[in-house]
Amino acid sequence: MGKVYLIGAGPGAPDLITLRGAEILRRADVVFYDALVHPETVALAPDAKTVAVGKRCSQVSTEQRFINRSLVEAARKHEIVVRLKGGDPMLFGRAQEEIDALEAAGIEFEVVPGVTAALAAAADLGVSLTRRGLSRSVTLATPRVGAGEEATDWAAGVTHGGTAVLYMGVGQAPEIAAALLSRGLSPHTPVSVVESASLPDSRSFQFPLSELRRAAENGIEGPAVILLGEVFRQAPAVQDDEFEDDFLAYGNSWFR
Amino acid sequence: MGKVYLIGAGPGAPDLITLRGAEILRRADVVFYDALVHPETVALAPDAKTVAVGKRCSQVSTEQRFINRSLVEAARKHEIVVRLKGGDPMLFGRAQEEIDALEAAGIEFEVVPGVTAALAAAADLGVSLTRRGLSRSVTLATPRVGAGEEATDWAAGVTHGGTAVLYMGVGQAPEIAAALLSRGLSPHTPVSVVESASLPDSRSFQFPLSELRRAAENGIEGPAVILLGEVFRQAPAVQDDEFEDDFLAYGNSWFR
Repeated sequence: MGKVYLIGAGPGAPDLITLRGAEILRRADVVFYDALVHPETVALAPDAKTVAVGKRCSQVSTEQRFINRSLVEAARKHEIVVRLKGGDPMLFGRAQEEIDALEAAGIEFEVVPGVTAALAAAADLGVSLTRRGLSRSVTLATPRVGAGEEATDWAAGVTHGGTAVLYMGVGQAPEIAAALLSRGLSPHTPVSVVESASLPDSRSFQFPLSELRRAAENGIEGPAVILLGEVFRQAPAVQDDEFEDDFLAYGNSWFR
Repeated sequence: MGKVYLIGAGPGAPDLITLRGAEILRRADVVFYDALVHPETVALAPDAKTVAVGKRCSQVSTEQRFINRSLVEAARKHEIVVRLKGGDPMLFGRAQEEIDALEAAGIEFEVVPGVTAALAAAADLGVSLTRRGLSRSVTLATPRVGAGEEATDWAAGVTHGGTAVLYMGVGQAPEIAAALLSRGLSPHTPVSVVESASLPDSRSFQFPLSELRRAAENGIEGPAVILLGEVFRQAPAVQDDEFEDDFLAYGNSWFR
């Protein structure tokens, strides 16, 4: 019986995987990887059979149950099986379903953590997510919007005053903005959107929450995170009329 | 003029730094490192002058302003200056003060993100921090307790229903438990404390929030995080009388 390693590939750039993750990949027999994992990261496993099991918005997904079964079957035939996930495995990755399946089958597993997108976005922006006197908490959330859903649990964690980072939300930017505004978050709350954090084509956009609905107008196609909070307000405070004038400033110029 | 790299050393284990971080260290001329950074991580910079600027609870701290000044001065004399921080630089690391000082001095900088302790703790526990139908948000916070402080901003992010991870709080476990209970968090909320996440001497303890005050009785000396939320409740639900019987079960046996 083999062992399954759930490895965080990191936020995008292939050199942001950990040394441990890279070393296990080097010895891997089989690698099941997500759509967003960089091809150079998959290539760190030169001797492995590699299997794309990507899930991505608006694309046909490999069924989670199929992934679970595949991991179990692979571990019965091979020594080192890797489940390579974008970012960190234990955050928004449905890792628990895979872990539960492995445990039910009596297969050993190990989780190798990774750098999550929020931290890569903060690195790209050059803005710390926490700051003395301004924010001592960061909430990472996947927003859920739309009719008939228990929509606002995630929003409670975003509106309490600390920093917030929303994963997988740009496509629903107008609904997210409406949900947050309706919960009393100030329309002047500074927002950054970072697309393709850590990659050469990374872009960032800054605007107040009241303009978040327009984020979708920027043709964002890569994975993106929405960051909210006072830490993203430049000192001296950004004037709202500056926001009007420089709507959707590109690059990190407001921060550096 | 040199460049300053703020690099996340990761949660503890020296092989949980990123490939990029290790590569920059290999070429570094000077490295300023925190107390909690593993000696083997510092040793990844064989040619560098290494300077401990560690801050640790209850120990004499190097003044933040001294660190800021040292980074600026080093970058005026050396090509590659590294500020090596435990975990990720942009989370609870006072990075903004260093970045502000570098910008004021016109010195180029780059942030290399790292694996934060919460994710290493989840990996050690084998429990995903998010889970479909149970939690779609994770709040990372540094608790603040005691008289005369604006004590509960951090607590709002912890009590809204998602998963929470508290950094640097074990020494104040009784006060933290009291603050969370007084805000209405259920005394049955499952809690895990993970000490020295990712390291060989990692330990974890599980109990309901009502018993968190007793965490300090375990002689925790390494860095530790407190994790709270329904994701830490084993399915089928852990009975409270089991908690009574097995108070402070060691290891991950409840999870695996």
